[in-house]
Amino acid sequence: MNYKMMGRFNAMILAIEAVFMLPALLISIFLGETSSYQSFLLSMGIILAIAGLLWLFSRKAKRDFYAREGLICVGSSWILMSALGALPLFFSGALPNYIDALFEITSGFTTTGSSVIANLNVIPKGILYWRSFTHWVGGMGVLVFLLALIPVSGQNQGFTMHLLRAESPGPDVGKLVPKMRQTAAVLYLSYLSLSLLNLVFLLIGKMPLFDAVCTMFGTAGTGGFGVYNDSLASFSPYIHYVTAVFMLLFGINFSCFYLLLLRQFRSVFKDEELRLYFGIVTASVVLITWNVFRIYGNFSDSFRHAFFQVASITTTTGFATTDFDLWPTFSKSILFLLMFFGACAGSTGGGLKMARLLLLFKSLIRNISQILHPNKVKVIRVNTKPIDEKIIANTSAYFFVYMILIFASFLIVSIDGFSIATGFSAVVSCFNNIGPGFETVGPTCNFSSFSPLSKLVLIFDMLAGRLEIFPILILFNPRAWKRG
Amino acid sequence: MNYKMMGRFNAMILAIEAVFMLPALLISIFLGETSSYQSFLLSMGIILAIAGLLWLFSRKAKRDFYAREGLICVGSSWILMSALGALPLFFSGALPNYIDALFEITSGFTTTGSSVIANLNVIPKGILYWRSFTHWVGGMGVLVFLLALIPVSGQNQGFTMHLLRAESPGPDVGKLVPKMRQTAAVLYLSYLSLSLLNLVFLLIGKMPLFDAVCTMFGTAGTGGFGVYNDSLASFSPYIHYVTAVFMLLFGINFSCFYLLLLRQFRSVFKDEELRLYFGIVTASVVLITWNVFRIYGNFSDSFRHAFFQVASITTTTGFATTDFDLWPTFSKSILFLLMFFGACAGSTGGGLKMARLLLLFKSLIRNISQILHPNKVKVIRVNTKPIDEKIIANTSAYFFVYMILIFASFLIVSIDGFSIATGFSAVVSCFNNIGPGFETVGPTCNFSSFSPLSKLVLIFDMLAGRLEIFPILILFNPRAWKRG
Repeated sequence: MNYKMMGRFNAMILAIEAVFMLPALLISIFLGETSSYQSFLLSMGIILAIAGLLWLFSRKAKRDFYAREGLICVGSSWILMSALGALPLFFSGALPNYIDALFEITSGFTTTGSSVIANLNVIPKGILYWRSFTHWVGGMGVLVFLLALIPVSGQNQGFTMHLLRAESPGPDVGKLVPKMRQTAAVLYLSYLSLSLLNLVFLLIGKMPLFDAVCTMFGTAGTGGFGVYNDSLASFSPYIHYVTAVFMLLFGINFSCFYLLLLRQFRSVFKDEELRLYFGIVTASVVLITWNVFRIYGNFSDSFRHAFFQVASITTTTGFATTDFDLWPTFSKSILFLLMFFGACAGSTGGGLKMARLLLLFKSLIRNISQILHPNKVKVIRVNTKPIDEKIIANTSAYFFVYMILIFASFLIVSIDGFSIATGFSAVVSCFNNIGPGFETVGPTCNFSSFSPLSKLVLIFDMLAGRLEIFPILILFNPRAWKRG
Repeated sequence: MNYKMMGRFNAMILAIEAVFMLPALLISIFLGETSSYQSFLLSMGIILAIAGLLWLFSRKAKRDFYAREGLICVGSSWILMSALGALPLFFSGALPNYIDALFEITSGFTTTGSSVIANLNVIPKGILYWRSFTHWVGGMGVLVFLLALIPVSGQNQGFTMHLLRAESPGPDVGKLVPKMRQTAAVLYLSYLSLSLLNLVFLLIGKMPLFDAVCTMFGTAGTGGFGVYNDSLASFSPYIHYVTAVFMLLFGINFSCFYLLLLRQFRSVFKDEELRLYFGIVTASVVLITWNVFRIYGNFSDSFRHAFFQVASITTTTGFATTDFDLWPTFSKSILFLLMFFGACAGSTGGGLKMARLLLLFKSLIRNISQILHPNKVKVIRVNTKPIDEKIIANTSAYFFVYMILIFASFLIVSIDGFSIATGFSAVVSCFNNIGPGFETVGPTCNFSSFSPLSKLVLIFDMLAGRLEIFPILILFNPRAWKRG
């Protein structure tokens, strides 16, 4: 086990986290929020001290680095980042219980958007900014950011590939450009440009600057923390449409944007995952618009709320323009299904991912056709490329462990005694990094009434969902920590 | 496509069904239930006429028979059997709506036990007997029964194997004895003996003969139709314990009984599936006994109800001794999970089956250890026997299509507008052949309030669950019907 290399990386990640707290600190100072700027200073001090100690400990690191070390590195850095990122909320008294603060910031970094804050109006702006900013940071991934910054020598190519694979969402990460660092840079640049474009559109709609920045963070990271208690309900239809469209854009595989830049329109248009994604969104919007018509009484409101909520749930963002918990069961069931599906692989969205659904469906169809023609050998293809059988087997295993963890978490959360719909939707929502669920955790409610045990389980679920299970699961496997 | 061979078999199955109606007819005559004995006579006439026509059509059948024809044969015969088995309920006026009658009898044959009858007290005994008897028939399978009866020549060995594979529950059917017909005979003899033993124990507990016979049918087939509106709640604790123990016995792989007869105690004791089964049952009983203690206030009632309900749900029977819908959410969540697990492969129980869970878990553990040691090749073993990779891939595909069908069915059923817990538990309960769900379909309620569309979906689910999906799914695949 290359502990020193892992220590170095964790130290760098923490240093970046401390730097990322600067804007929130400046906002707190500028607005004269004493408790909040003191707590940012204190937190940054603690984080930098820990980073420094880690760095000292891990001088002279060896170069060998294996896949499992990549997984452990990613898993541990996300836990550390959340544990220390929660400090400002805790110190400022915004969330006087540390587990609540940890829940809130893990929800931020994992781009879940589930909150334990009952009333956002009493929270200092600096804290609100930090909370929303964690969405933006967590959306693309901190390691990807790090990889985009640091120069990587030839020997370290394998190492960075392991890291990127472990942190990026989806069944398979391809390299966009031959070098890892450039891939990471391309990803971050697309992310940054699209975020700025989103901000400009929100400002055109006369959204106040602070609200617009925070909403953009939540949209780009597909997070969903709002700055008002009613999420986005009180904003104009224009803001709703802009946000819905950008949520859908951030749910697209970022390699599609790169291909668009290269003017390869044909391969984007023919992308099977993208077609599935837009097909499911369109079908859901049509069905829900029809189903909620009797509630809103006119087409334009029905369509807007249906479109917004479908975009919000399928991209696993979690913003709301209306209390969809009051919708008819059929509409709620569609949203419930979308919670599992998630967005495209290689996007900032969570969930199972469209690419996995596509693979599982194709593998199922092959299975049925093999019953009819037992002797035919068929290779599964996506976008005409043949898919390795190992990836298919891994995807099946992923689906099983995903369902098992959801059911096991539900069992523990149900000890709290809330209704089945509350407990199950809370787990499904956290695991898929969405935000709201139904009933007690519906879009107008929050997660504060759960017990500390349930909150810890949901924190685990958020991390497992964001990092696609294995980096977190492997931390609990004692064999992974053995030397050799 | 060998339509003639399929026709022959369907004709034989229908003839057997008509014969199986005789006891119910005799009971109706004996009790002077005019409407019911007339409807049995009429139904038997129609069934025999259809069987005769099928037989005439399918003279001179060729011998070649493939796996897909076995699947289609099984799927179509179960649908025919249910469609015609529903006639007595329809003709007698017990269920004046044909879809209701179809629902009730499909629920019977598939050993589900979900009912649309609100008040059992007004139903003639002959009808009640037929309804419960379908559990017993469906538990082991009609084709298995047929195979045990008819002489099979050497050329037809492959044919019968295809049929037995398609109808028997579990990921893999082994031959107990070299010849198929003897395997089927051994299965049916164990089933018959165990059923008689169950009946004797019930009669010792002074249960009235008619109730005892019907309860035995529901227990042996892991069906769960009761003859009283409160299921088994009004019977003595002795009857509860006897029924719970026999439910658990009928949930065991029947090959274990055969091994016991051969005095191979060691291999039964070491059977991994059996250990998992009893492990899960024990853990669930302990947790629920602790959780419901505050409701019943004493250990003996808490334990008895916990033990009974766990046995009833995990074996997918569905009898109830108490309204478990009023239990705390934690206990309900455990029951909800058990609904998916189901009993052992090769038993009369439904659900995913313990053997599949075992395979999926082992494959998952292999997946994780391959992350740690990418170059190690590991073969999955159950009871020290290596498992073919094809079976593992099929099991993964099975799990995926199982979840997909459950979610798709839930979506359609949710149009009716019942709560999410009602709709979801109704589908899960029907698909896993259990019987009751939660809320509107709880143990004291019934399925009558669903729309005809939902009932048809649930009928599909019961059949798909009982026949393990592929024989039913393949009927809807036009390519399966192509010649060649």
